[in-house]
Amino acid sequence: MKIDILSIFPEMFAGVLGSSILKKAEEKGAVSYRVTNFRDYADNKHQTVDDYPYGGGAGMVLKPQPIFDAVSSLSEGNEKKPRVILLCPQGERHSQAKAEELAKEAHLIFICGHYEGYDERIREHLITDEISIGDYVLTGGELGAMVIVDSVVRLLPDVLGNEESHRKDSYSSGLLEHPHYTRPADFRGMKVPETLTSGNHSKIEEWRIKESLRRTWKRRPDLLEAYTLTDLEAKLLDEVKKEE
Amino acid sequence: MKIDILSIFPEMFAGVLGSSILKKAEEKGAVSYRVTNFRDYADNKHQTVDDYPYGGGAGMVLKPQPIFDAVSSLSEGNEKKPRVILLCPQGERHSQAKAEELAKEAHLIFICGHYEGYDERIREHLITDEISIGDYVLTGGELGAMVIVDSVVRLLPDVLGNEESHRKDSYSSGLLEHPHYTRPADFRGMKVPETLTSGNHSKIEEWRIKESLRRTWKRRPDLLEAYTLTDLEAKLLDEVKKEE
Repeated sequence: MKIDILSIFPEMFAGVLGSSILKKAEEKGAVSYRVTNFRDYADNKHQTVDDYPYGGGAGMVLKPQPIFDAVSSLSEGNEKKPRVILLCPQGERHSQAKAEELAKEAHLIFICGHYEGYDERIREHLITDEISIGDYVLTGGELGAMVIVDSVVRLLPDVLGNEESHRKDSYSSGLLEHPHYTRPADFRGMKVPETLTSGNHSKIEEWRIKESLRRTWKRRPDLLEAYTLTDLEAKLLDEVKKEE
Repeated sequence: MKIDILSIFPEMFAGVLGSSILKKAEEKGAVSYRVTNFRDYADNKHQTVDDYPYGGGAGMVLKPQPIFDAVSSLSEGNEKKPRVILLCPQGERHSQAKAEELAKEAHLIFICGHYEGYDERIREHLITDEISIGDYVLTGGELGAMVIVDSVVRLLPDVLGNEESHRKDSYSSGLLEHPHYTRPADFRGMKVPETLTSGNHSKIEEWRIKESLRRTWKRRPDLLEAYTLTDLEAKLLDEVKKEE
């Protein structure tokens, strides 16, 4: 997969794209990243990328020319049109399903603006997706692009090792994870539940199911509604409700 | 405000904390950032920060000692206890309201884990908040910490300039923004709506209200339901519905 990011703050990306799984994915050849300052594509003398809005009012607007030309140049030689993604508070909410959809593409281009508006012709004629990562105000699209890139790249084949894959799977059972404990059994007076150090594996398994149900019931009852309980799970959930 | 971030990938943060508004906020003295590798606090010879889970099973668990000691050391001299925030898929969903709440604090400490679990004693005895930035799987807590830091720091007094403040306000009217256009009026055959270049200010204002209603109606009808329309807005929304 090719990933292009257009931003006037390209220096924001090196630390994130050069660490952990995103770095490993590039080393394994699963993905290549390019971060481009779209100011380099401005065809005016001062490399201006924004201008005043038609109709007046405060606030600047990102000009169409630098962004159209950057996307066109970065897509040269593509067999298929790239997905061109605008990070935007008014966009579709990002989700795991969207990450899975984007993971099937050969080329993603992210466009990151700041407080400026985007000239509407960019929306109408250039981009294929507008995405928001959540209902909170951020300074620019850069963090949103990093979040989407991370959620997509970790889904590419052979990117995750066994250890990370395991954790990924544990979020998809439909329930929240049970609590985890590691050594020491007594940390400054705070103790590990006795069941977990008992060596009794069927009791440990039951404890884990019960605590997973407890956490889901307390924090995400909506998940339980969509979940089909086994007989054992139904019994343990009844116990939880009596205890709480 | 003091912001501490605990991560075993501290190199991820320099680009984001050293650019744009987050950088300006530190230069203005509104905030100071420290990024700490909590491996430095591990009291074992090999600086191990994780260990096998009690009760068996795959996956490693972050040990309590390095994180407890790092938080304790970073909070030394505080008059008030810091907010200690765990980035976690099972946490409360981040929101603008949460950002506003956190912006009132003097000291925030973010704990970023990766695929490992957290020893439950960290959750029970150390942290004050568990936050998730959205319903998608990420490699670690680092991007979540950056997103929350950005959403909080931009709310601190005197951090935003006039230009950015204006944009911020424009998202809080209750409707989505109308489209923006800037020069040229004809960009490769794609034209700016004539009303906007007419110079007729009352027509321009009406066009903007109508297009703001159109976009909200098409993309976020939930916002319209919570919004009280003026007589003019009601008339324009009727026109929009007939046109679409």
